Amino acid sequence: MKLKADRVTLLKALAHIQSVAEKRNTIPILANVLINVVDGAMTLTATDMEIAVVEGVAAETRRDGAVTAPAAVLYEIVRKLPDGAQVELDHAGGDAPLGLRAGRFATSLNVLDVDDFPSMMAGNLPHEFSIPAQVLRGLIDRTRFAISTEETRYYLNGIFLHVAEGDAGQVLRAVATDGHRLARVETELPAGSAGMPGVIVPRKTVAELRKLLEEGPEQVDVALSDTRIQFSIDNITLTSKLIDGTFPEYERVIPHGNDKILRVGKKIFSDAVSRVAAISQERSRPVKLSMARNLLTLSAASQDQGTATEELDENHVSYDAAPIEIGFQARYLNDITDQVEKEVEFAFSDSSAPTIVRDVDSPSALYVLMPMRV
Amino acid sequence: MKLKADRVTLLKALAHIQSVAEKRNTIPILANVLINVVDGAMTLTATDMEIAVVEGVAAETRRDGAVTAPAAVLYEIVRKLPDGAQVELDHAGGDAPLGLRAGRFATSLNVLDVDDFPSMMAGNLPHEFSIPAQVLRGLIDRTRFAISTEETRYYLNGIFLHVAEGDAGQVLRAVATDGHRLARVETELPAGSAGMPGVIVPRKTVAELRKLLEEGPEQVDVALSDTRIQFSIDNITLTSKLIDGTFPEYERVIPHGNDKILRVGKKIFSDAVSRVAAISQERSRPVKLSMARNLLTLSAASQDQGTATEELDENHVSYDAAPIEIGFQARYLNDITDQVEKEVEFAFSDSSAPTIVRDVDSPSALYVLMPMRV
Repeated sequence: MKLKADRVTLLKALAHIQSVAEKRNTIPILANVLINVVDGAMTLTATDMEIAVVEGVAAETRRDGAVTAPAAVLYEIVRKLPDGAQVELDHAGGDAPLGLRAGRFATSLNVLDVDDFPSMMAGNLPHEFSIPAQVLRGLIDRTRFAISTEETRYYLNGIFLHVAEGDAGQVLRAVATDGHRLARVETELPAGSAGMPGVIVPRKTVAELRKLLEEGPEQVDVALSDTRIQFSIDNITLTSKLIDGTFPEYERVIPHGNDKILRVGKKIFSDAVSRVAAISQERSRPVKLSMARNLLTLSAASQDQGTATEELDENHVSYDAAPIEIGFQARYLNDITDQVEKEVEFAFSDSSAPTIVRDVDSPSALYVLMPMRV
Repeated sequence: MKLKADRVTLLKALAHIQSVAEKRNTIPILANVLINVVDGAMTLTATDMEIAVVEGVAAETRRDGAVTAPAAVLYEIVRKLPDGAQVELDHAGGDAPLGLRAGRFATSLNVLDVDDFPSMMAGNLPHEFSIPAQVLRGLIDRTRFAISTEETRYYLNGIFLHVAEGDAGQVLRAVATDGHRLARVETELPAGSAGMPGVIVPRKTVAELRKLLEEGPEQVDVALSDTRIQFSIDNITLTSKLIDGTFPEYERVIPHGNDKILRVGKKIFSDAVSRVAAISQERSRPVKLSMARNLLTLSAASQDQGTATEELDENHVSYDAAPIEIGFQARYLNDITDQVEKEVEFAFSDSSAPTIVRDVDSPSALYVLMPMRV
């Protein structure tokens, strides 16, 4: 294998690759990147056996071949080469080291056997659809904060992506919950997705995918079976196993008939939550909301430190139901308001029942929040 | 006590204060800030019993008094108040809570008895001098990286500040060493400092002082005895205990007669060190320098990952002594070159003897570096 590539092109691809490659040194080859040149086309591959990323890289290739080398070291070295450097890679084959040269810098990297590099078979992926990157980003951002981190509830450790019956026909839905809050976001059903199974996309896959979406692609092609999902974004393919479990029947926890409606400006509300919560140094930082006619009082107390309150009046708040007091974790409130554009709507039942939260300007998202005793 | 202050003014002072206040909760009152209004003048004080910071704060004071309240919570709350807010503090006296009000936000903070707040007596500080902030910054930045973190060698856990005999008369010198490297920086003797004892300024004091210097004051007034040092910067006074120990006779480890001189551009050298060191994931990351006539080869090796080399030729390097090979920790080389402006000079003796490093454009700083076997 022999080739020459721009530092900046190579660096961008290696950044994606090294983030998927395994950092713990349990299986050494998983820390390596597979560099492959076939018919003059270069690809980089990394896998942790759950996720695989394959990325095409523009390069002047001179000789076909394949080699695996330590991903983190290669990334660090390329990162530290000067801007505008041309990077030459040269591998004689077999267990010869991989040579890298750039100007008067040269490195010789130990390799591991290409045949030992695990290939992640996607298998047959019968369901295919295409989705605007912007829309996929919206599904992810408005649900991922609610993904459970409890490993025992592995079936909650991802986003449940599925076709559901919306108010106006079928929709593609993303749902995540950790038992304390639930996020449900939907979008128009993409052509081709109608018959797909409901799948749980693991948290790490969501994180890697989200990073790729950061770089501003237009469109994402999705293909899936009931065990694998594949995202194709420009010259990158991310393939992932799905979580093998059953997502709970989440619709059951969404209350109906919550009729006490509070509307409040998002920024002033989330700032007030942060301020009153600052009195407490507990992890849960409970904040109490007390509603009266067009008046919202936020309050928090800490035995050690003292108490804090803030009032938001009719300039910022509309509420005309019966007075009610209800407590939530500050962080849970802010995780949701972070996803709200301008105005947030709460629909309460009583102080111990689940509350519905919505973005007034975006009916496609619905959040459920469990109260806590304060 | 009653007063009103601008959020931004108060926040700046609280930022200094909370960084000195004790975070570990061993002695609760050390986590508090003492707010004092005497004859209408407001000060904030924090101490961890080693360091005390007293800062004057511009405020509209209405009533004298003193109170202590949790520094971290107060800082967090003031930080989260909106820009331009006016903050009102009101304390009725005794163990009544401290009220804070800003717009429709209100907090009531638990207090601890003012009489329990430890006052750090500076005592008599017979030696006084004034030093430009810029110069003091130079003394700190070029020595602090070499401060030892080994607690057993407590007498090395600070910067040794003392009057010494320089090449052209008496100078004020700062020295730090951890046994692997030594940094010695000197400046013109400030008026009034001639008779001062040599003192060891603890690392935490150095760090707090350095933060205050960041804000661009012009001049720093220093006063000291053989147990205390005090820095006065605008409206802030930082008082610190000194390390009670004897700094080693560092001049003995500075070699004389190192006659193999290498000069190399600082940026190209430190970039090359980082690049070749990237091959190794060890903490020490040893780098070998091999000198021949106007040629410097940097190299590093890792059993797991491979090898890396970079050559710097006569365009960047001047060397005309006998060839020599010598190894150093990458981080130690970069800590020093970080302090060098444009060109770095190494004076070697042999590959196992201490090496002298200098900034070609700044003779006031001298570094000694112990080689390591590579």
